[in-house]
Amino acid sequence: MDIIVLLPETSEEHIRHILKKLESKGLKANVSQGTERTIIGVIGDTSKVTEEEEDAIRAMSGVENVVRILKPYKLASREFRRTTTEIDLGGGVVIGGKKLQVMAGPCSVENRASLMLVAEKVRDAGATIFRGGAFKPRTSPYSFQGLGEEGLAYLAEARKKTGLPIVTELMDSRDLDVIMKYADIIQIGTRNMQNFRLLLEVGGVDKPVLLKRGLSATIKEWLMSAEYIMSRGNQRVMLCERGIRTFETATRNTLDLSAIPVLKQLTHLPVIVDPSHGVGKWDLVAPMAKAAVAAGADGLMIEVHANPEEALSDGEQSLRPEMFATLMRELKPIAAAVGREI
Amino acid sequence: MDIIVLLPETSEEHIRHILKKLESKGLKANVSQGTERTIIGVIGDTSKVTEEEEDAIRAMSGVENVVRILKPYKLASREFRRTTTEIDLGGGVVIGGKKLQVMAGPCSVENRASLMLVAEKVRDAGATIFRGGAFKPRTSPYSFQGLGEEGLAYLAEARKKTGLPIVTELMDSRDLDVIMKYADIIQIGTRNMQNFRLLLEVGGVDKPVLLKRGLSATIKEWLMSAEYIMSRGNQRVMLCERGIRTFETATRNTLDLSAIPVLKQLTHLPVIVDPSHGVGKWDLVAPMAKAAVAAGADGLMIEVHANPEEALSDGEQSLRPEMFATLMRELKPIAAAVGREI
Amino acid sequence: MDIIVLLPETSEEHIRHILKKLESKGLKANVSQGTERTIIGVIGDTSKVTEEEEDAIRAMSGVENVVRILKPYKLASREFRRTTTEIDLGGGVVIGGKKLQVMAGPCSVENRASLMLVAEKVRDAGATIFRGGAFKPRTSPYSFQGLGEEGLAYLAEARKKTGLPIVTELMDSRDLDVIMKYADIIQIGTRNMQNFRLLLEVGGVDKPVLLKRGLSATIKEWLMSAEYIMSRGNQRVMLCERGIRTFETATRNTLDLSAIPVLKQLTHLPVIVDPSHGVGKWDLVAPMAKAAVAAGADGLMIEVHANPEEALSDGEQSLRPEMFATLMRELKPIAAAVGREI
Amino acid sequence: MDIIVLLPETSEEHIRHILKKLESKGLKANVSQGTERTIIGVIGDTSKVTEEEEDAIRAMSGVENVVRILKPYKLASREFRRTTTEIDLGGGVVIGGKKLQVMAGPCSVENRASLMLVAEKVRDAGATIFRGGAFKPRTSPYSFQGLGEEGLAYLAEARKKTGLPIVTELMDSRDLDVIMKYADIIQIGTRNMQNFRLLLEVGGVDKPVLLKRGLSATIKEWLMSAEYIMSRGNQRVMLCERGIRTFETATRNTLDLSAIPVLKQLTHLPVIVDPSHGVGKWDLVAPMAKAAVAAGADGLMIEVHANPEEALSDGEQSLRPEMFATLMRELKPIAAAVGREI
Repeated sequence: MDIIVLLPETSEEHIRHILKKLESKGLKANVSQGTERTIIGVIGDTSKVTEEEEDAIRAMSGVENVVRILKPYKLASREFRRTTTEIDLGGGVVIGGKKLQVMAGPCSVENRASLMLVAEKVRDAGATIFRGGAFKPRTSPYSFQGLGEEGLAYLAEARKKTGLPIVTELMDSRDLDVIMKYADIIQIGTRNMQNFRLLLEVGGVDKPVLLKRGLSATIKEWLMSAEYIMSRGNQRVMLCERGIRTFETATRNTLDLSAIPVLKQLTHLPVIVDPSHGVGKWDLVAPMAKAAVAAGADGLMIEVHANPEEALSDGEQSLRPEMFATLMRELKPIAAAVGREI
Repeated sequence: MDIIVLLPETSEEHIRHILKKLESKGLKANVSQGTERTIIGVIGDTSKVTEEEEDAIRAMSGVENVVRILKPYKLASREFRRTTTEIDLGGGVVIGGKKLQVMAGPCSVENRASLMLVAEKVRDAGATIFRGGAFKPRTSPYSFQGLGEEGLAYLAEARKKTGLPIVTELMDSRDLDVIMKYADIIQIGTRNMQNFRLLLEVGGVDKPVLLKRGLSATIKEWLMSAEYIMSRGNQRVMLCERGIRTFETATRNTLDLSAIPVLKQLTHLPVIVDPSHGVGKWDLVAPMAKAAVAAGADGLMIEVHANPEEALSDGEQSLRPEMFATLMRELKPIAAAVGREI
Repeated sequence: MDIIVLLPETSEEHIRHILKKLESKGLKANVSQGTERTIIGVIGDTSKVTEEEEDAIRAMSGVENVVRILKPYKLASREFRRTTTEIDLGGGVVIGGKKLQVMAGPCSVENRASLMLVAEKVRDAGATIFRGGAFKPRTSPYSFQGLGEEGLAYLAEARKKTGLPIVTELMDSRDLDVIMKYADIIQIGTRNMQNFRLLLEVGGVDKPVLLKRGLSATIKEWLMSAEYIMSRGNQRVMLCERGIRTFETATRNTLDLSAIPVLKQLTHLPVIVDPSHGVGKWDLVAPMAKAAVAAGADGLMIEVHANPEEALSDGEQSLRPEMFATLMRELKPIAAAVGREI
Repeated sequence: MDIIVLLPETSEEHIRHILKKLESKGLKANVSQGTERTIIGVIGDTSKVTEEEEDAIRAMSGVENVVRILKPYKLASREFRRTTTEIDLGGGVVIGGKKLQVMAGPCSVENRASLMLVAEKVRDAGATIFRGGAFKPRTSPYSFQGLGEEGLAYLAEARKKTGLPIVTELMDSRDLDVIMKYADIIQIGTRNMQNFRLLLEVGGVDKPVLLKRGLSATIKEWLMSAEYIMSRGNQRVMLCERGIRTFETATRNTLDLSAIPVLKQLTHLPVIVDPSHGVGKWDLVAPMAKAAVAAGADGLMIEVHANPEEALSDGEQSLRPEMFATLMRELKPIAAAVGREI
């Protein structure tokens, strides 16, 4: 149901004009005269009323405002599906279940040797999924853009060696085939959260998708992007909070941990938190990872690099393997305290 | 030149380690001991030092902070090119010259008849470029996504009829060929400002590009995205301010007009302002268009629709043709007041 | 009228409980059953329903959301008073009329001699009100805090010499008496926009108040602060936009010029724009001042300092007198273009 | 040490002018010529260089930018005092020690009976400090403004009954004496974080101060406000994170938990978190309280109301006593996991 608020002194004729418009869309209306305002209650499944139709109504003479009551997303909503979606990657790795899944690894794949080393170390420390970027979104055209398929091959080799499934980013629809060949989870990065054509592409494939929150995306917009993917058939979507942009400069972004309980109310999709990008400094990663688990996250994505000082990207925010191992140990009692395992 | 600020009590050994690192990148260093801090001045063309190398230095023990002195963009900078870039579309339409260029038309191409009607009306009112979207980025998968090539064909027909060059949005690299066939200016939308692969694509073609500012992009990031395009050879880039996201809800976005004089200092690229998306309400468009001209914009992009109430997108923010004609008349004395024509 | 949206499957008993609560506040209700939601339309003058009562209703079991239809401010609203309030300072200086009023002067009063000099120069250039701070809000306790009453005496002397009325800031209710002795307009600064006790104080005196927008205040909150002042009897309030905080760092703040036309729709109070604080750099002040006039501002507040390099505060954002004189000349045709004088 | 970056092609004369200026302030300079920029390193204790002097230098011809290396606060910095400040309220309640202190109670004092009831319940549940507002900052002049001294008297009675020390807000310097009579901790609210005169007042008294973060305050500005208080002698200051303003509307504010580890690095002052105001909804309070403890907070401030539906303020964000008791139990293992007690 939607509410149309009319301006004071709106003529009968204008009201009739609005009602005709609603009927033309198969919607019933319920006019009620208040002491200060007249409002029109729109009856029927208004979730079918698209943004542009709503804007058009808002543009009609006599209309002060249109208030949307129903959420614009359906498939992603908790009302549509009551239980949290569980995404099974095989080998006992289930995202959205009692056990938290931890995705760890370097920001970008740099060379074979160090990748294998890190993969084994994070596996030994308890990570259940291996992360690494072969295609890197960089703000500067003069920066390292990733190894491409060569990097994907190294990731596959690391999976063979460690048994850990792989999550890696897809930046361009033309890379979908090659990513499908190697990845277990397709990551859609922050800057592509509203690359709608790309969302439709991954909506059409049979692989889980990790959808990162846009730098200034509202939770509603984020869920609409998930809806894009799901509307094409792919229901295996997980959401990853990684910090939003604010005026604060002490941290690279502001990690919005309240998004976790909010998402738990609004959607059935699993929620992952990436503290590494959220804060941008390695020494803030551990406390924020603990906080994310305490707030109810279903998993974590953490950057680990054998030698952060040599990292070709995001060195500043990477943990050394031994720090990661310590963190994993420290997370256990916190997970237990909120009825989870890690 | 960059500045590396060291933590108090950093050991000689750590300092030597940092200096070695700099030498390995062919950079000279200049250590100066302050009363409270020791800093290292890095000498040489540090614009070649990539983000990740900078992050890596920032991650080294003993380093408190790294302060970048040089701008990370070169080709887009005013230092690189002193005079404003003029983009000649032929037929006397030059963007970046004394005459302001006004891009007007509907948000999206809906049907042939109304498109032709609007095209003639905006041309008669003084618009010099015709705008319309055939591929539409929509936040909902259930919304109208645009007519695709059919829409482009209508735009081409409108150009034939009115003589106005066409600006239209490219959303996906796979559409580049068809867009190249029809468009005179390729628009990169807000949500794709950091779709780096798409930026490289349009950097490789011989057509002017209108680059909209991202919803939460800093001016520096925006210029880095322009640098992406220019680094591939295409120097004909114009920047379009269309509002940034803030906490204010009375307007859809907050139109950042101070970006105009700031950009005039930092870059030689022409600056266009889109007040329609910036504010999201038709009755705020005229005052903001006037303000943009007064602040020194090189052009405007304004939504005009024959019948906003029937618009399939952004009806609320579109002007009727007669309102647009009035606005164009009212803009003349303001343009004259700042030494421009319209 | 307010709208209460109920959660799906809310029991009859809960609904009765909510209706009883509304009756207890003398409000009638109108329940309408939608296909997806049941909503309660609250009839009666709900502007008397305070925030906390609304929050309490929102906290009741079964309530999904409460949507406010009426604006929470009355005295400040355009509905309450259709014509723009004109504030007459005598001597032909009327704020809110056809003629724009320009408040110019140094950020803070530093010494007698330079103050007199600047006062005469801005008067000669066309300023109609003289500004200067005697009590300065500084982010550092180690910064110059202003000359206090000595500074006010200098301002009064400048008024005597130039005939220009004085606007100066009140920071603490204990200074009200001394400010009343000297000022023609009492300025409430950005950081005190929600210093509610101070607002009530100036609401009780018979002097015009210039209310600056808070650093992150919404337009609605800003108008509520005006309502505070007006609720105590003082109707002579003017609003001053001075930039809001965003993620952008190229400017000190982001001057929100769209606030001008928005305020013109919502309120009858005059709107002043302070581009000096908004952007924080003298070379951006002129273009933004022009933009503010083009957008429909009723006046400007501009920092002018005889020698910005020696300024004890905000030197960077001050214009030299000759620059100010040039700007005043350049503003004339823009004011004329929007049907105003300056 | 500060860095002055010069514009390319700055004349020798301008450089000399700048150096003279620095000498006049008793500072030494160290000019170093880079390939692309010349910079001046300022030697000496530049923390004594005030904002306005820095702005004045920035305003000098030839200066491109001034980069501040030293932090503008001293007394509040971790460099000034290595160990976390412990604030002893007596009766074994120490803020900043191993044991977390929990401040609980209603947002505002409404009536004697319910206040006594809640005080006993929160004490029994493990709260160690009782909170309640007698002077309430309300965005609407038509809202309940608090009971004033009557409310303070009730709080004192609750303290007598439960033994819990009291924290309550000071809104106006004229109320300082009466607040001193009753409060154990003086709260400075979000909207007064930069009410500098009020900060100086509480800096002059011998009572601990709880300083809430401003709605859009950076961590640096927040610490500068603490510096204001400390500069007057009062060293017993604690910082309270309560959410910052962002574009997100699903929560009232965005609780910035990364501020906890950042503050732990920058300052020795204890850090309290108020999840109730941060999120604004009671059902989000528990997860965020847990997250705050996991992130390393020294204490919590939580709203508890006997009957939230009847609350005269912030009912929506209050917990019922039994929910609070459950939360306190659930916090124990999390506190233990990070080496703390609760």
